Amino acid sequence: MPVSPPPHRAGPNVPELLYLLHGDPGDLAEALAGLRAADIADALRALPTDAAARVLLSLPFDLAVTVFDEPELTSHRVEMFQAMGEEKAAPLIDAMSADQQAELFRELPQEERARFLKRLDATTRHGLQLLLQYAPDTAGGIMTTEFVSVPATWTVQQALEHIGQVGRSKETVYAIYCLSPQTQRLEHVVSLRDLIVTPDRSTLMRDVGSRRVPLTVTSDTDREDVARTISKYNLLALPVVDDEQRVLGIVTVDDVIDAIVREQTEDVQKFGGMEALGAPYTEIGFGAMIRKRAGWLMALFVSEMLTATAMQHFQGEIEKAAVLAMFIPLVMSSGGNSGSQATSLIIRALALGEVKVKDWWKIAVRELPTGLTLGAILGVIGFVRIELWERLGLFSYGPHHLLLATTVGLALVGIVGFGSLAGSMLPFLLKRLGFDPASASAPFVATLVDVTGLIIYFSVAFLLLRGTLL
Amino acid sequence: MPVSPPPHRAGPNVPELLYLLHGDPGDLAEALAGLRAADIADALRALPTDAAARVLLSLPFDLAVTVFDEPELTSHRVEMFQAMGEEKAAPLIDAMSADQQAELFRELPQEERARFLKRLDATTRHGLQLLLQYAPDTAGGIMTTEFVSVPATWTVQQALEHIGQVGRSKETVYAIYCLSPQTQRLEHVVSLRDLIVTPDRSTLMRDVGSRRVPLTVTSDTDREDVARTISKYNLLALPVVDDEQRVLGIVTVDDVIDAIVREQTEDVQKFGGMEALGAPYTEIGFGAMIRKRAGWLMALFVSEMLTATAMQHFQGEIEKAAVLAMFIPLVMSSGGNSGSQATSLIIRALALGEVKVKDWWKIAVRELPTGLTLGAILGVIGFVRIELWERLGLFSYGPHHLLLATTVGLALVGIVGFGSLAGSMLPFLLKRLGFDPASASAPFVATLVDVTGLIIYFSVAFLLLRGTLL
Repeated sequence: MPVSPPPHRAGPNVPELLYLLHGDPGDLAEALAGLRAADIADALRALPTDAAARVLLSLPFDLAVTVFDEPELTSHRVEMFQAMGEEKAAPLIDAMSADQQAELFRELPQEERARFLKRLDATTRHGLQLLLQYAPDTAGGIMTTEFVSVPATWTVQQALEHIGQVGRSKETVYAIYCLSPQTQRLEHVVSLRDLIVTPDRSTLMRDVGSRRVPLTVTSDTDREDVARTISKYNLLALPVVDDEQRVLGIVTVDDVIDAIVREQTEDVQKFGGMEALGAPYTEIGFGAMIRKRAGWLMALFVSEMLTATAMQHFQGEIEKAAVLAMFIPLVMSSGGNSGSQATSLIIRALALGEVKVKDWWKIAVRELPTGLTLGAILGVIGFVRIELWERLGLFSYGPHHLLLATTVGLALVGIVGFGSLAGSMLPFLLKRLGFDPASASAPFVATLVDVTGLIIYFSVAFLLLRGTLL
Repeated sequence: MPVSPPPHRAGPNVPELLYLLHGDPGDLAEALAGLRAADIADALRALPTDAAARVLLSLPFDLAVTVFDEPELTSHRVEMFQAMGEEKAAPLIDAMSADQQAELFRELPQEERARFLKRLDATTRHGLQLLLQYAPDTAGGIMTTEFVSVPATWTVQQALEHIGQVGRSKETVYAIYCLSPQTQRLEHVVSLRDLIVTPDRSTLMRDVGSRRVPLTVTSDTDREDVARTISKYNLLALPVVDDEQRVLGIVTVDDVIDAIVREQTEDVQKFGGMEALGAPYTEIGFGAMIRKRAGWLMALFVSEMLTATAMQHFQGEIEKAAVLAMFIPLVMSSGGNSGSQATSLIIRALALGEVKVKDWWKIAVRELPTGLTLGAILGVIGFVRIELWERLGLFSYGPHHLLLATTVGLALVGIVGFGSLAGSMLPFLLKRLGFDPASASAPFVATLVDVTGLIIYFSVAFLLLRGTLL
């Protein structure tokens, strides 16, 4: 489902770009002129790094800055930076937005960081050192320092004139932060809309708009909580303040969207049972892909070996009744499936803040009967399946088929019930231990449930079939 | 990790609200005054429906409208509406934003819809009927009609004055749509920032800001594509146009965030192997929860029964060599795990547009060697495990332990390779057949891989162990 007819000009494709690169630089600049920065960034991503660096440098300076500022370029920026050389890169980086500068520097090797910092403008350097203190998944780590602030005692007219002068260089002008002239504390937030609809331009800023205490976060607030607040209150930006309520920076809504989408990708990949890739699928090399996937796969494999150990104990039973082995995959997978359902529900409920860690027992009290009911439904189907095959003569399970069918049915109640309970508790346990609850992947849960599932199955079999099959 | 110290006043809790509701209405209004609409909506969600309706009606009209407009109330709105009665609800709904009106009406039972439409203001009714034509997961279904448009021939001064007058009632004033005075076609989009930083207020609107053709979508553009465009180009709003390039409405960034978060929840739940809940976990009743989960669980169970059928064919082998049964859970689950990794990668790559359906073969060519490599890694571990246990005397696999270890090792290469390939192809197949690729859940893939895994395992066993164990 493509964005139907794209009315804006599409960028030149990769062969065209490479061709233009070897011709007249004017042709290249012309081919790219009139394109949006995000589209140029897309085209650059597809080029070899040194070609991309040369195209970037051939663009008009302002456009080059905007393109280099695009979050889409993140994973390529360090290499492009190295291909350009520090001399040519320095002015570009001086002109970038503060949050993207910080992201670039975080990815630079330590020794390059220090050397390159010295080349930057003193103001840029100072701001950057401030931002680099914060962890990348906190409000401090994604905020930018280019916001509009005015004394709360200014008039609307003064504020509008000020925005007219400085507006171009700010990340957003749609929220204006009004500070106490004495303490520099944040007193009030006014939207540009509030300003524009105020008929009397001599109104003081502190009297414009709503009188509510502004919503703020601190620099160590989790990135996901920032996203949740911005989305809940439909904000265009959220100020990050220190202990004295002084504004350190702001997080804007477009950074939050990027953060949400990135978080979403990480969560899906983790839930699939692997490390988050951290880059588009198509841009990951073979070796890196194996490394990202082999770790979890090996961990799961080694844990799953417990099933072999458990089975060793039941070797006698299997030798006596090979028919029991036939239903092992069926009953085991049902436990894993119900566990995976419960886990996905709780991961999302935790992420959305619908459920708190301290509510774990409420969930347990709810998941156990849900799981037992689901298990009973599957148990009946399993029972009917075995009896039906037997009576229709499709397969002979021997003289004790009724007992076998009962064993499978009852085991399913226990296994699906346990699967739902274990699957719902795992995210809580991980969060309590300080891990990301989203690490509770479907394969992780399945592995956890498999060994217990086997033990439940053979225990039920032992109780029901002792003296007959066993 | 709560939004650390919330500096804005938290709302009264549920018992307090219920108490206030039975006392002086003035006390209640006072308790809620100064709260943000989203917080009041949160409090209302926790109340019984009729109490919530009464609280809402006791609020000042403008605040009540804003609260009722909150997307957080979506799943409660129809009930609150019915509890209020049509007479009291009509003015509230007349004043709501157009996109939320449409969402409310979509959930109303058909006969109430028609009756209630008649009660509304003629303009509201007409706008609503227009919006209700569009499917809820399209641009038309999430757009709003309250945007600012001006003739492209106006001056900046005229536009600013116009916004000052109408600005309060529009969903956003930060994007101004400039229309051709003759044809009403969209000529140009100007941001409020562009207006404010234009020093000469007599500049014509068509000459302000960038001269690029505006980005637009059509009413049937998929909601996810709208989200992608807004996020890629960092827009605050995106216009929806008809065939003649006339603006039908706009989608704003906060609607897109809501859409992304909702989509994300659905995707995680589907990937966990169930229907999307469509409401917070804590608000779903027991019966509904069972229904949402039992469907997929039963479908997977019935498919997984094929493993029992497959095992019937191998009964002879299991009776001869019960030791083979011991490794069934281990080899089967490895196939499922690698498949689940591959599926989660491809679902995300498709959702982000990194990979197109026509690229399926590129992915296949990539996943097969990746899977075989991962299988080889697990195969070596499996081989070592069996030999180690044998040599350390932890368990005796019989005289043919070396052949058994080789069987398990080779089967793992095949099964993990097949799992990765099948897991990566499933989302393509689903998308090609017109389903949501996100329905390719981890349990779905595991089930798909399980039967094949068994066949691979016993085939390898048959080839290697014929004449010895078998």
